[in-house]
Amino acid sequence: MTVTDQISLPRGFRVAGVACGIKSDPGKLDLALFASETPCAAAGVFTQNLVHGAPVKVSRERVPAATARAVVINSGNANACTGDRGLADSQRMTELVAAELGCEPQGVLVCSTGVIGHFLPFEKIAAGIPQVAAQLKPDAASLVQAAQAIMTTDTFHKLATRKIMVGETEVTVTGVAKGAAMIGPNMATMLSVIMTDAVLSPETADAMLRHAVDRSFNCISVEGHTSTSDTVVLLANAAAGGAMDETAGDALQQAFDEVAAELAQAIIRDAEGADHIITIDVAGLATREDAFRIAKTVADSALVKTAVTGADPNWGRIVSAVGYAGVTLREEEITLRLNDTLLYEQGSPVSYDEAAVSQSMRDNREIHIDLICGSGESAVRYWTSDLTAEYVRLNSEYTT
Amino acid sequence: MTVTDQISLPRGFRVAGVACGIKSDPGKLDLALFASETPCAAAGVFTQNLVHGAPVKVSRERVPAATARAVVINSGNANACTGDRGLADSQRMTELVAAELGCEPQGVLVCSTGVIGHFLPFEKIAAGIPQVAAQLKPDAASLVQAAQAIMTTDTFHKLATRKIMVGETEVTVTGVAKGAAMIGPNMATMLSVIMTDAVLSPETADAMLRHAVDRSFNCISVEGHTSTSDTVVLLANAAAGGAMDETAGDALQQAFDEVAAELAQAIIRDAEGADHIITIDVAGLATREDAFRIAKTVADSALVKTAVTGADPNWGRIVSAVGYAGVTLREEEITLRLNDTLLYEQGSPVSYDEAAVSQSMRDNREIHIDLICGSGESAVRYWTSDLTAEYVRLNSEYTT
Repeated sequence: MTVTDQISLPRGFRVAGVACGIKSDPGKLDLALFASETPCAAAGVFTQNLVHGAPVKVSRERVPAATARAVVINSGNANACTGDRGLADSQRMTELVAAELGCEPQGVLVCSTGVIGHFLPFEKIAAGIPQVAAQLKPDAASLVQAAQAIMTTDTFHKLATRKIMVGETEVTVTGVAKGAAMIGPNMATMLSVIMTDAVLSPETADAMLRHAVDRSFNCISVEGHTSTSDTVVLLANAAAGGAMDETAGDALQQAFDEVAAELAQAIIRDAEGADHIITIDVAGLATREDAFRIAKTVADSALVKTAVTGADPNWGRIVSAVGYAGVTLREEEITLRLNDTLLYEQGSPVSYDEAAVSQSMRDNREIHIDLICGSGESAVRYWTSDLTAEYVRLNSEYTT
Repeated sequence: MTVTDQISLPRGFRVAGVACGIKSDPGKLDLALFASETPCAAAGVFTQNLVHGAPVKVSRERVPAATARAVVINSGNANACTGDRGLADSQRMTELVAAELGCEPQGVLVCSTGVIGHFLPFEKIAAGIPQVAAQLKPDAASLVQAAQAIMTTDTFHKLATRKIMVGETEVTVTGVAKGAAMIGPNMATMLSVIMTDAVLSPETADAMLRHAVDRSFNCISVEGHTSTSDTVVLLANAAAGGAMDETAGDALQQAFDEVAAELAQAIIRDAEGADHIITIDVAGLATREDAFRIAKTVADSALVKTAVTGADPNWGRIVSAVGYAGVTLREEEITLRLNDTLLYEQGSPVSYDEAAVSQSMRDNREIHIDLICGSGESAVRYWTSDLTAEYVRLNSEYTT
């Protein structure tokens, strides 16, 4: 996901990342700008947390939109739990960007990520915005800098791209994301900006973004703690031209889904202290919501996570998590495979080679939990990480 | 809670604990019997997990009851996820105990705690039941042995007692419990038996038990993983005599509440790897359910737990957990105190001495999180433990 020579921006987008001094290390990039030369259809999906940052309050009022131009993001400070002053600061950030780009403030979205409960160092941001605007470029190196400027405890930057053909026209979908846990040691957030040169109405952009997010960023968890600032934004500037028919729409939806899933998985791969990446497939339910609830309950169980850490095929922990997910089901309908080995079949234990399964858990960073919980037709795929002593160390260090 | 010279059994109860060889260490007690000489009003509260052990299936059909005589409990094996054979084994345990006591099997309740997914070593249990029945005694030493015989990863046995006067009559309420986490490294359960010589109908026993459990065992969590076998049983044998009026009923309810709360807190004090015991008070909600949901969400947050481990007054983690609890509230109504220091008042950060609060967290094993979330009249008190590297180590050791 960081192979930059395969990453390119869609037509008509320019981006930049600079260091403006929000982070204590003055050399660290902390201000990013993603801008389109022309107005975009824009959509956004935001945290469900009732305690949410000022940038969430400002941005979610501005989408879906037909004339968005840019997203400005700072790292190092979440501007959350900061009251009226925080709200005014977020609005001023969009005004300063709008002045640089020659557009309405309403056309600028804003995100902030970092420590909660501190006011933004606004002079630094006010000085940084003209700098980052002056450096806007359409090249891959600038995209990498922008991706780095939104990082907090991430250990690598996260980019993904897909190209599809719409008739004779090549359309690009490129996304950037940050997040090393739903919450890191001293900050809280996953953020993503997805850009495309496809021709989309705001309504279609909104529907396609929600479809992609439901199958990607909403299907990951590190410790299940919902952040105050989670934001995913889609900008579609129509620069590729061409007309969207149903076939092209399906291809574009798939490109959005894949870019979002790749970025979501990158967040899990970068999860704090994780030794294993766990993919959970849950099938056989009457509704996707039921499958989702079971997958999330298994993913959030500290007992399941620590069993994976210990390479222990302790299936009782997985099956018992299914049982308390709040979904109506019968024990006799549960079948479990772990790394392709059948452990539990229709409510009964199965004889299997414990040492071999444990060895496969020890040898592979990727773990696959495959649950069938009935004969319904709905399924979901979910990603999480294991729980290690290193995660506890990272999150219990004194940080305030 | 282990001061045995203050602990006594209610009149007419006899108990015993023996080693029958279920646990790998042959000297460890693993079979307990709690018996009344006369029929009891009995009530039970069981796990809500849809995947539940065979003893839960057997026992919950038998309460509320007017003629219960005993509870038999083995540790070292949960007899859960064991299908029809497991169900037959639990039923046979009650038949063997009934034969010893000269009562109907229907009058015997059964619990099992230990590893999931293995059949009981039934010959050992069949040989043990006559032994444990032969050793039934009404003294405190036998009660300690019974309390030890139900332990799994517990590091100490858990007993609590209260005496109240009903008119001229002294009534005793004595409880025993086990549990060192909702789930330990290789087992899953909290169990408790509460005995009283008070005069109670099955219906009143049931209502009083539910009241007590809702304010004790249902208000603790270690990692939020609901076990397959959780069971709390109340036996009331009326041996004290005397008539229950409303005043006596209130006093008895309070005795039940206090015994259950003391045992529940003992489980949290014994939580695996815990450095801190966290008491969470949530007030100001419209309903007790809302207050409960907020308290449980804060208690189950790995980020809140690790902040406590690190003595870090990181209030953003607590406030953001309130925000995703699924309860409708406004950020402006949230006020937070930590160890009696005001950190966040009606939605705004408060200046405070961070070093002093951190020091108080470091110096005290007990941490107090006090949240007011509005002007409603409902409140709840909840207990949990912090999350340490030692917890991860205990639960990620290879155990199967």
